[in-house]
Amino acid sequence: MLGSTHGTLTTDSRRARVIACGEQPSPVVHGRPAATDDLDVSGRPLYADVPDLDRFFRPESVAVVGASDTEGRPNTGITRQLLAWAERVGARLHPVHPTRRSVFGIPCAPSVLHLPEQVDLAVLLVADPVPVIEELAGTKVKFAVAFASGFAETGAEGAAAQERLAAAVARSGLRLLGPNTNLNAFERFRDDLDGPAIALITQSGHQGRPVFALQELGIRLSHWAPTGNEADLETADFISYFAEQPEVGAIAAYVEGLKDGRAFLLAADRAARRGVPVVAVKVGRTETGARTAASHTGKLTGADAVVDAAMRQFGVIRVDGLDELQDTAALLARARRRPDTGDGRSRTADRTADRTAGRTADRIADRTADGVVVYSISGGTGAHFADLATEAGLHLPVLSEDKQAELHEWIPEYLNVANPVDNGGHPVGDWRGRKIIDAILDDPDVGVLICPITGPFPPMSDKLAQDLVDAAEQTDKLVCVVWGSPVGTESAYRETLLGSSRVATFRTFANCITAVRAHLDHQRFTAGYRSPFDEAPRTPSPSFRKAQALMRPGQQLSEHAAKQLLRAYGIRVPREQLVTSAAAAVRAASLVGYPVVMKASGARIAHKTELGLVKIGLTSASQVRDAYRELTDIARYEGISLDGVLVCQMVERGVEMVVGVTHDRLFGPTVTVGLGGVLVEVLRDSAVRVPPFGEDQAHAMLTELRGRALLDGVRGAPPADVDALVEVVLRVQRMALELGDDIAELDINPLMVLPRGQGAVALDALAVCR
Amino acid sequence: MLGSTHGTLTTDSRRARVIACGEQPSPVVHGRPAATDDLDVSGRPLYADVPDLDRFFRPESVAVVGASDTEGRPNTGITRQLLAWAERVGARLHPVHPTRRSVFGIPCAPSVLHLPEQVDLAVLLVADPVPVIEELAGTKVKFAVAFASGFAETGAEGAAAQERLAAAVARSGLRLLGPNTNLNAFERFRDDLDGPAIALITQSGHQGRPVFALQELGIRLSHWAPTGNEADLETADFISYFAEQPEVGAIAAYVEGLKDGRAFLLAADRAARRGVPVVAVKVGRTETGARTAASHTGKLTGADAVVDAAMRQFGVIRVDGLDELQDTAALLARARRRPDTGDGRSRTADRTADRTAGRTADRIADRTADGVVVYSISGGTGAHFADLATEAGLHLPVLSEDKQAELHEWIPEYLNVANPVDNGGHPVGDWRGRKIIDAILDDPDVGVLICPITGPFPPMSDKLAQDLVDAAEQTDKLVCVVWGSPVGTESAYRETLLGSSRVATFRTFANCITAVRAHLDHQRFTAGYRSPFDEAPRTPSPSFRKAQALMRPGQQLSEHAAKQLLRAYGIRVPREQLVTSAAAAVRAASLVGYPVVMKASGARIAHKTELGLVKIGLTSASQVRDAYRELTDIARYEGISLDGVLVCQMVERGVEMVVGVTHDRLFGPTVTVGLGGVLVEVLRDSAVRVPPFGEDQAHAMLTELRGRALLDGVRGAPPADVDALVEVVLRVQRMALELGDDIAELDINPLMVLPRGQGAVALDALAVCR
Repeated sequence: MLGSTHGTLTTDSRRARVIACGEQPSPVVHGRPAATDDLDVSGRPLYADVPDLDRFFRPESVAVVGASDTEGRPNTGITRQLLAWAERVGARLHPVHPTRRSVFGIPCAPSVLHLPEQVDLAVLLVADPVPVIEELAGTKVKFAVAFASGFAETGAEGAAAQERLAAAVARSGLRLLGPNTNLNAFERFRDDLDGPAIALITQSGHQGRPVFALQELGIRLSHWAPTGNEADLETADFISYFAEQPEVGAIAAYVEGLKDGRAFLLAADRAARRGVPVVAVKVGRTETGARTAASHTGKLTGADAVVDAAMRQFGVIRVDGLDELQDTAALLARARRRPDTGDGRSRTADRTADRTAGRTADRIADRTADGVVVYSISGGTGAHFADLATEAGLHLPVLSEDKQAELHEWIPEYLNVANPVDNGGHPVGDWRGRKIIDAILDDPDVGVLICPITGPFPPMSDKLAQDLVDAAEQTDKLVCVVWGSPVGTESAYRETLLGSSRVATFRTFANCITAVRAHLDHQRFTAGYRSPFDEAPRTPSPSFRKAQALMRPGQQLSEHAAKQLLRAYGIRVPREQLVTSAAAAVRAASLVGYPVVMKASGARIAHKTELGLVKIGLTSASQVRDAYRELTDIARYEGISLDGVLVCQMVERGVEMVVGVTHDRLFGPTVTVGLGGVLVEVLRDSAVRVPPFGEDQAHAMLTELRGRALLDGVRGAPPADVDALVEVVLRVQRMALELGDDIAELDINPLMVLPRGQGAVALDALAVCR
Repeated sequence: MLGSTHGTLTTDSRRARVIACGEQPSPVVHGRPAATDDLDVSGRPLYADVPDLDRFFRPESVAVVGASDTEGRPNTGITRQLLAWAERVGARLHPVHPTRRSVFGIPCAPSVLHLPEQVDLAVLLVADPVPVIEELAGTKVKFAVAFASGFAETGAEGAAAQERLAAAVARSGLRLLGPNTNLNAFERFRDDLDGPAIALITQSGHQGRPVFALQELGIRLSHWAPTGNEADLETADFISYFAEQPEVGAIAAYVEGLKDGRAFLLAADRAARRGVPVVAVKVGRTETGARTAASHTGKLTGADAVVDAAMRQFGVIRVDGLDELQDTAALLARARRRPDTGDGRSRTADRTADRTAGRTADRIADRTADGVVVYSISGGTGAHFADLATEAGLHLPVLSEDKQAELHEWIPEYLNVANPVDNGGHPVGDWRGRKIIDAILDDPDVGVLICPITGPFPPMSDKLAQDLVDAAEQTDKLVCVVWGSPVGTESAYRETLLGSSRVATFRTFANCITAVRAHLDHQRFTAGYRSPFDEAPRTPSPSFRKAQALMRPGQQLSEHAAKQLLRAYGIRVPREQLVTSAAAAVRAASLVGYPVVMKASGARIAHKTELGLVKIGLTSASQVRDAYRELTDIARYEGISLDGVLVCQMVERGVEMVVGVTHDRLFGPTVTVGLGGVLVEVLRDSAVRVPPFGEDQAHAMLTELRGRALLDGVRGAPPADVDALVEVVLRVQRMALELGDDIAELDINPLMVLPRGQGAVALDALAVCR
């Protein structure tokens, strides 16, 4: 460990400055010093090493510092559980205690400096872990876990203590889990369950418990990382590590606050490249949640819309409830192809094997059909489920005439088999039941079969459940069942369905739909994923030097200067001249071309329109002269100092948009695009992205706008030049990357997007330097 | 039974015409002929009798027509179940069969004409119920149930058969449940459960099964009405009846299609007057759902947004999933105050007793506080729950300093007890646990205590569960628990929590939040409810006669005529004159006052603006003359025949809105209000209501608009005259009631809402007569 998590070893001066003025330091890669070529032009890393946590999760030998066997002491219970765990995983356990000779009959070392062998992991049960960490610095111990609480979760004093701990860890060269963590990593995992597993990461042990309990429903878990206060190892480290583990089918994370935005994105990027889905609850939808979450773990909580966007950009599936976390992760794990199977599934095996970090997944051509068929023993159930599924955006293809004819061999003619498929009940009771399921799964348009069983009726539903389980064994397609009975003690549910490692079983329509949609979306996302980090700029563009000359630290630029900044980045602005006399205004107007717009220009003018400092549609020299006088009169009256009056070309026909840069505490500069005018003020119809992102995401931003249709042309208006708009968004991203840490706010409002082929013009701009 | 469900006996000519031209007949009240004073001005009923279903649900004697005891026949199983049911409810059962002498040892009557006694209910197990219904017409049998299928659910032929059946029922004087129904009404209901019950109504037995199964979780059910194809008795009848039953705490309905919109509203109104909550799943969110639902039950499915609005108007709580239906209905039933308790709860008892049909509930002053406290053994859990609850609109008050100090007597100082209350775990294990719960429930701001237990840990959670159950026995406030373990076999859940008839137990955060919100919303709704049927107009206004003269059946009115229609109803239109020469235009302009707007006027002009048939901002006689020439030239070129050119006062400053009337297949004329201009076209930002509705609902419509803030004034604009806008909405409602069935479409677009105190002006109007 030569690096640090706090950037203190960086030598790049630009980067150091960025850190100095940013609220949140960018991380440096673990395990080696940051090299300039690993940084993007903003000084943020483009790469994060994956910590090798094999020895953490499967150590050969473990020291337990503060071990106890005195009844009644909390450490005794913990020591006992660690002993049981060590026995299960075949690790040698060494108690450490300054005064005890032995603990539970095992000889005790007086300190970590006196251990009988080199250990992989030290579990620290002491109130102040710092001295032990300092002792461990001299040993070759790779990992430590600190259970102690009383750090950042308790307030300012605790936060200072945590900083001291983090510094000690950084000096020591070991990696620490905690403080304020617990035994979750050392729980008993069932080893009798099949299929790809869920790996779990939580910042609260209590909140992870239901996911862990999924094992009792037959769902495999491979790891649990209770990250606690994340003084060192953080959620991102575990995402990166779990994404590399072959047994992991999906990663489930319960996040209260992210420690470092960029580290999270790099980890999510790694998982996306590998095609490993990450499902996350992120507390902080509201201010209440954010505030309380902060008090609980002492983390920063990013503005929620930015968190949402960042997750979407990198394919992280965000859910709200723990039940959704469980159900979605379980389905995604089951949906992941088994690399160990032969025949038809071998392509999948290759696919998993081929996908190495740094490569994109877009050459994977064999992705499954996204058609969903709803199959039920009641027409009402099928209609109800289909209604909700369609509303949620699932694609329910109408089955072909041939397929319907085939199904009618076993299902009475008068029942609907177009999709949803209603079998009327009786066919499931005999040999026909399995035939129907196989026939549906055999359809090339079908990727997912969902069978909602709302009213269990053993003579039918027991056989149906068994047929579904059997059919799922023979297919790579997804077979889902909703067991709708609220009772949940029925044997078809407990034994048959939960006994299968291939069927995904749900208790509610909603969670089934959420999970299936997450799976299909993720499949689509992975197939088209290109890592934006591969293409992120590393060196400043020629624009940057021009822009630097315009920056005025701590000041708001005048509209004219802000527009020059835009022009430096190739963003079109209207023809305009800054003038300081009525006569010059008239000359400027005839150069710019009538009609013109005139605006007061100065360093600190906001709300120009409301103050009457904008005059539009001036068509003659006399109007220009009058306007000049009026603008300067108003400015004098309002006590506003002007650097002059802008005489601008008037651009009328187009769609008004807003494009800007704002700072997010967690992710740094972000790019926003929205509909302009009243729409953005009243409806806040906007979309945000965290750089770096590609053209695809710029287009996706526009798709997210509710008023997107305005760009396509409404009321006979021509379609707007969307390509030019996307180009502006990307140029603004470049500004965010190169100038983002020097700019507090950048706002093009409005950006007039002209009819297709005619470009886009920034009519007004606001820039505030830091 | 002298009335009919199909309106054939109405004598009111206006009403008959309405039915003739409407797609959906309005219902006539059951049990007596419709009297004119029971109808509103549109000819729709203002009152529906409640069918007396006591003898249906608790008959003294029952005939089973088509009874069988031959093994292997479906009717044998049904007969056996009916025998068991009759024995349970103490009814005498009489088998009826033309050839059998006895069934299961009970003497058989050869036909319903030979029954040994007058029966209350005839269960028809025959394929064609019509002949039996005809025989029953001569007897005094009140109720029949028809199980046979093959009616409207199978297509056009079946629908015709169902019409014949409905006609036979109407002639017979009895009330029929079915056809295509089942044994659900005669299931075994647990009689050992306490508290107000759920009454269940379903159009699909399979879909009702999970609600029925709630009894296995300790939730009381009192009735199940499986309405099947609703040839006679429909969902609305059961809502009305159940709302009158003292043991019913909440009504749960699973609806695929509503038979009659008005009947549903009248039933919902009755439940609202009684304060009995109705929770409903209504299939048909999407076209897919609607289509399939129609094919399943042969019902009309109304446009979903209208269904949504209608339900909201009358306090019906619409949910999407069966799990939400169960959880919400269960909570609402439990939340209903027990009329049998003394002491502090007696007010509630009075409240229930006082509420009779026809009275509003607004004088109930003692409604519970709406504050929600989240209490948990983990800070993470509390923060997560609080985040989601706040986002869903629940009010989590910050507890007072005094209350927090009190809680800190038992909870360590460093834990957050402001709300959410985090006890850190340990206090629940001893005497402090109950103290904390009682202290929270004792807070006058608190109406609901929610305790999410995500990770069950028996030493803590068992005691916590018991304390919550005990505390709930001592309070009228709502105590909710979320049992987050996916396993669900834990004894604290199965025995302690489900064993309580006072605690409402959930499995997911989301469903708990949905249900609590439904309860608080319903409480608020009921407290402020005024039945709009009490104030609905019964006779035409003086405006009606003026309006009639303007109607042109089958035609679109000219803009000028449409505006006269508005003026007849007291809606302001701009000063304007219709002219047929340029000279007249100039005279009109000086009368109207410059600047003016000029528009081509004719019977069939749409998209005037796009065609260039509108000229705005004309400030001089010469401009008016030119405009006249240009408009008539364009019309000639486009081949549009004009009745002249409108010269109108120009109204500039205001908020553009749209107000209109459209026809809904299920509910008849509806009133829509939306934001005008591009907003309504691109974002469809509008709200709809089904008449009759009051001023409160007109205001509520505006609240639903996403762009509502525009009315409050943005970018320095003055607040708009919302009262004038509401007045226009109500006047348009009056038009919908009086002219609705004669008008296919009415559209004021734009309605310019001027600054507060200045009114609203209809700048353009479209009216199409039927």
